[in-house]
Amino acid sequence: MEIFYSNDIDGGLLRLDAEESAHCVRVLRHREGDAINVIDGRGTLLRCTLTDADPKGATARIDSREPGFGAHPYRLTMAVCPTKNIDRYEWFAEKATEIGVDVLAPVIGERSERKVLKTERLERLVKSAAKQSLKGAVPEVLQPQSVRDFILAAPDGAVKMICYCFEGPKHTVADVLHGIRREASSGGTLQLPPFSQVFRGQLQSPTAASSVPEICILIGPEGDFSPEEADLALSRGWAPVTLGASRLRTETAALVAATMVYAGF
Amino acid sequence: MEIFYSNDIDGGLLRLDAEESAHCVRVLRHREGDAINVIDGRGTLLRCTLTDADPKGATARIDSREPGFGAHPYRLTMAVCPTKNIDRYEWFAEKATEIGVDVLAPVIGERSERKVLKTERLERLVKSAAKQSLKGAVPEVLQPQSVRDFILAAPDGAVKMICYCFEGPKHTVADVLHGIRREASSGGTLQLPPFSQVFRGQLQSPTAASSVPEICILIGPEGDFSPEEADLALSRGWAPVTLGASRLRTETAALVAATMVYAGF
Repeated sequence: MEIFYSNDIDGGLLRLDAEESAHCVRVLRHREGDAINVIDGRGTLLRCTLTDADPKGATARIDSREPGFGAHPYRLTMAVCPTKNIDRYEWFAEKATEIGVDVLAPVIGERSERKVLKTERLERLVKSAAKQSLKGAVPEVLQPQSVRDFILAAPDGAVKMICYCFEGPKHTVADVLHGIRREASSGGTLQLPPFSQVFRGQLQSPTAASSVPEICILIGPEGDFSPEEADLALSRGWAPVTLGASRLRTETAALVAATMVYAGF
Repeated sequence: MEIFYSNDIDGGLLRLDAEESAHCVRVLRHREGDAINVIDGRGTLLRCTLTDADPKGATARIDSREPGFGAHPYRLTMAVCPTKNIDRYEWFAEKATEIGVDVLAPVIGERSERKVLKTERLERLVKSAAKQSLKGAVPEVLQPQSVRDFILAAPDGAVKMICYCFEGPKHTVADVLHGIRREASSGGTLQLPPFSQVFRGQLQSPTAASSVPEICILIGPEGDFSPEEADLALSRGWAPVTLGASRLRTETAALVAATMVYAGF
């Protein structure tokens, strides 16, 4: 199933940008009248009819809408310190999008070797991964911020987990998720402010209603968090979690954690 | 922790090959009398003293042995069809080694676009991943074989799962693992012939005692298995499993499945 992306939607019509138009018209040779599938990146699949096969800016009529296309029953924010080798981070972003993630938050720890990250490549990459894995929602990529700022800004209501290597009692991701399900089944309040609202004042995916649990997992850099960062997180109610006995690279730990959440719902 | 690899062990002495010797002596500048850590690739960490710092073939005295170093409580064979883009397959092999896998079996399906695979690169890659992730056992890489031959050769006693996209009832990996644990707790027999014994007549890792459950997961190519391959597997007692609602690439599906096993023990 070939899927295009558009954020230029006006009522019953939409326009594909230059890149998508060229792919649709030049590469796939679609013509006026052809049926095409478009995601709005906010969770909805739009079944359309191509009305103007302009390879520089194609337009289409929206025939029907499929909200919650490829959605998952939780909202997951993965706050992961960028790896020294950026390929590994981009690989994580692509795989996490396939499995299911809503917000990618690059965070810079005190021990991070990489202090800067350009998000443009990540944004292109998760958009293409969302189309490839048939998801209506494209993960939101936040601007880099310090681990400390991220910890302080995280909403109290969200279920927050931090993975680090220090000694001390830790939960498993499954234990924490079990707690969420118990709360949900007991009619507990899961009306949580999505991280993206907190961080950007704007929520990308309308399908990610706050009626699903809001989960955030914080993964440190190669050199782990500083004790101060870890203490701050614990003092703010973050649950220390273990990902098991294996010693995992940063990007592997992040994907294992995202997979454990995916498997838990 | 810097770890070297040697399969040239004679009683209380071992020799590093040219590559490992150069890394140990030239790059890390170890000298006679230095303490070094070496894995035998079969599950044991050897704490040694360097006795001859020859950069072409260093030798060391074994001071103590740590069996089951970085071991996991199951034996997992991942039989995965090679991807068209081999980078994606090698990425899976590296990540699976970090998380925990014992045997990598490249299998060629009727719908596989890639029909051949050289295993040398994979073998080098999993060896380095095992050292990096502090595991005494290096996953065994089998020679490529057809999906059909692999299904027919798989031992009856092993817990076998096949992931495909056809309609029909499916288990989750967690359900299947729950069945294993129930059998184990009830003192059921888990004395299973490891896949590697079946396929190579030789078991790489002595730590992988057959007292742990032997699990095999079969992952198809981009174009999925053929109906005949799927029917053959079901007729031989393979459990059809689902990896959830997300549409995953071959290598992502394989890693998600391996992670679900890792998370289940």
